[in-house]
Amino acid sequence: MRNHLSALEAAVSPGGMLTGSDIGPRYHTDTFGRSVPAPEAVLRPASTDELSRALKICHACGLAVVPQGGMTGLVSAALPRSGEIVVSLERMNRILEVDRAAATMVVEAGAILQNVQERADAEGLMFPLDLGSRGSATIGGNIATNAGGNMVIRYGMTRGLVLGIEAVTANGDVVDSTFHYVKNNTGYDVKQFFIGSEGTLGIVTRAVLQLWPRPAERAVAFCSLASFADVVSLLNQLRTSLEGRLVAFEAMWESYYGIAAALPGIRLPLSAGKPFYVLVEAASASQGEVVPLLESALGNALAEGTIDDAVLAKSETEARSMWHVRESALEVLGLKRPFLAFDVSLRLDRMEGYLADVQRQAALICADAFVSTLGHLGDGNLHVGIQYPGSDPHMPDRLKATFYRVTGDHGGSISAEHGIGIDKRAYLHYSRSKSELALMKAVKLAFDPKNILSPGRIFDLGEN
Amino acid sequence: MRNHLSALEAAVSPGGMLTGSDIGPRYHTDTFGRSVPAPEAVLRPASTDELSRALKICHACGLAVVPQGGMTGLVSAALPRSGEIVVSLERMNRILEVDRAAATMVVEAGAILQNVQERADAEGLMFPLDLGSRGSATIGGNIATNAGGNMVIRYGMTRGLVLGIEAVTANGDVVDSTFHYVKNNTGYDVKQFFIGSEGTLGIVTRAVLQLWPRPAERAVAFCSLASFADVVSLLNQLRTSLEGRLVAFEAMWESYYGIAAALPGIRLPLSAGKPFYVLVEAASASQGEVVPLLESALGNALAEGTIDDAVLAKSETEARSMWHVRESALEVLGLKRPFLAFDVSLRLDRMEGYLADVQRQAALICADAFVSTLGHLGDGNLHVGIQYPGSDPHMPDRLKATFYRVTGDHGGSISAEHGIGIDKRAYLHYSRSKSELALMKAVKLAFDPKNILSPGRIFDLGEN
Repeated sequence: MRNHLSALEAAVSPGGMLTGSDIGPRYHTDTFGRSVPAPEAVLRPASTDELSRALKICHACGLAVVPQGGMTGLVSAALPRSGEIVVSLERMNRILEVDRAAATMVVEAGAILQNVQERADAEGLMFPLDLGSRGSATIGGNIATNAGGNMVIRYGMTRGLVLGIEAVTANGDVVDSTFHYVKNNTGYDVKQFFIGSEGTLGIVTRAVLQLWPRPAERAVAFCSLASFADVVSLLNQLRTSLEGRLVAFEAMWESYYGIAAALPGIRLPLSAGKPFYVLVEAASASQGEVVPLLESALGNALAEGTIDDAVLAKSETEARSMWHVRESALEVLGLKRPFLAFDVSLRLDRMEGYLADVQRQAALICADAFVSTLGHLGDGNLHVGIQYPGSDPHMPDRLKATFYRVTGDHGGSISAEHGIGIDKRAYLHYSRSKSELALMKAVKLAFDPKNILSPGRIFDLGEN
Repeated sequence: MRNHLSALEAAVSPGGMLTGSDIGPRYHTDTFGRSVPAPEAVLRPASTDELSRALKICHACGLAVVPQGGMTGLVSAALPRSGEIVVSLERMNRILEVDRAAATMVVEAGAILQNVQERADAEGLMFPLDLGSRGSATIGGNIATNAGGNMVIRYGMTRGLVLGIEAVTANGDVVDSTFHYVKNNTGYDVKQFFIGSEGTLGIVTRAVLQLWPRPAERAVAFCSLASFADVVSLLNQLRTSLEGRLVAFEAMWESYYGIAAALPGIRLPLSAGKPFYVLVEAASASQGEVVPLLESALGNALAEGTIDDAVLAKSETEARSMWHVRESALEVLGLKRPFLAFDVSLRLDRMEGYLADVQRQAALICADAFVSTLGHLGDGNLHVGIQYPGSDPHMPDRLKATFYRVTGDHGGSISAEHGIGIDKRAYLHYSRSKSELALMKAVKLAFDPKNILSPGRIFDLGEN
């Protein structure tokens, strides 16, 4: 190992490798505070060439590496495992080019999401990927995990916001696929292989991003509804009447809304006790359009009985306060008891039966389990929390196993946006067929036959 | 071969295999009328199971197969080559399910695009992929080629309209990845491998499609402009003011518009002689919205001097007549002389220099060459025609070679939406890097190690 390390140090520019006590806790601690032993070394390449040289050495020596972005992932994908070298893209964080007319931006993969958003804004445009961890998440990490977020209903996942990428594969080859256009049917779309591959097929070093017109105005409203069928009706009414101006449709079940009131600092926009609540956000690039539009759409829904009540935010403060109810999910769930948080996709027509089944099966394990639900309903994405009594140390694993099995039974995806990493690997078969898993492994072997890139993430090559 | 054929016949239901004189010309003739010798057999599986059984036999015997949809491709990908068995999906053409609330449709791959559009329409929704060949193109072919079309600026390519697929790989394995949701980060997104792979990685048998709200109203306008910079300004002004309601932005250079007038039946909406013309289409799901919106946007552009003149279609007939100018490209180019038609993507900021270069270099080969340009400008996609004197039989190849080299020099994509197939294979290196080609070949070998699926399309495994 010592010889490898000196070769690696020579491959990068000064400051490009950390060892021993120079390795701070941030390289081996995740966003939940879970910590693993420090890696032998942290490589911090300053350029694609440096990374390419370093990976050639790792490949020749069979040294495993794990790439790191902002360490905001939720499935343990970026925590180094024993024997792995960390590759941090933190020194490759420049915004290289903005083309305002074409609405594109070229960035290095270590660029922080929030910096990208702010630069787009300064150019009169918008990069519409947005997540709670915007201040530390990197574009490279967003691409590796195909990040979702709050505005997927309008702008899609990260996959749809990337026009081109450059990546370095396991053997150190630089794959230049930095296209700038939506239309490019010249053989396989190479970037698709890397997007969402959680660092297992290559390390993304550069990306060409698609920017969007920047909205001039937003409107936020909160509604209560009597049934799930009404929630679905409202979604489709707003999809039609607001069209491209509907940017968020966040549903909260009473099982969430009812307990949110207890969180200090939360102000409920509507009284609790109704079966469903929905937060709607609309945005428009034209001034003066979106408030009357949303007002009239909700007025119609009220008149037709689709919604029970509604309130429109009259200020930025009120809008933030409405979003606060939605975005405090982890704090709300953690108020009184330990809990597990899940992230699944389901067909709309299966959601009610699914949630009833989750509640029933959880109760079989633990009579006291409480299932609380909210989610990006326009994308079919639910975030489900299960609170449980903290006395039995095996309870979390038993609840998880049951939850994912039920999700599979209902044809759901066990990970809508967070990925698989290490944490969800054991449950992957509930969502993906044997033939899909076989193909994934064949692709992994084609890209990384020595299995040195993020080994064991998503799946273990040895398993069946 | 004879033994293989009886095994194949036994694998499919009655009527599932054609041989000899039962094989009509449609199985070996393309949309340009180019014909190749008839294949030994045409397989017409009636189900995924039948296709799976048949492919297992082909795989065991090393028999090459080429899948066929509606035979509307433009790059010779689906014409059988010597020794290849044709697999036609024409008996698998059912629409299996429509979920109106979730706006999804499940279809067999042989379903005709127009039937899918009409069924969506009957359900009050829209499938927004649209091409001239809608009446014969199949969804399977659209997926295999990642079809584009007229509304990509609003709804994206086929890749963005497919939520899940089922495909059969070279060894007969059925890959079930028929998800119904946008968000599904459970490992590699398997459908991405098959979309746009031109039949080389698997045969798509089923798809889950994303439907959209159906517009209630459309508005079409035609403008003339003084400069390319003005065209780009207009594009960005309309992107902002129309937002999700801008569905087409088709630019025509004077080099096209000026010669279009000579086509019988064409009525020019504005007088010729201006440097640029743009056809704009806007659509909205709300009644009474889109005409005043487009009128006001064009009024502003006129007042600011971005456009020189504009006319709004006052009837469906006028709208069709405007589209007729744009859609008659092949007829217009072919009026007087032989021509070559190209389909490229370019960065907006390189288009002017690129086209000047194309004209200059074409003139070096043939002083009389005439370059005529139009395109889906909002997608960076140009369709370039080169008319040439028909006397020299080597002229087309010389012009093609030059055209694609110049396209590569300007960082363009040599195929925006038509694909590579056989016809553009020799030029692929102008758009894709060596490392990309190496990855494509590694993926092909991982999926189809015996190279029996559409061999030689996109690239030849033997070449470097």
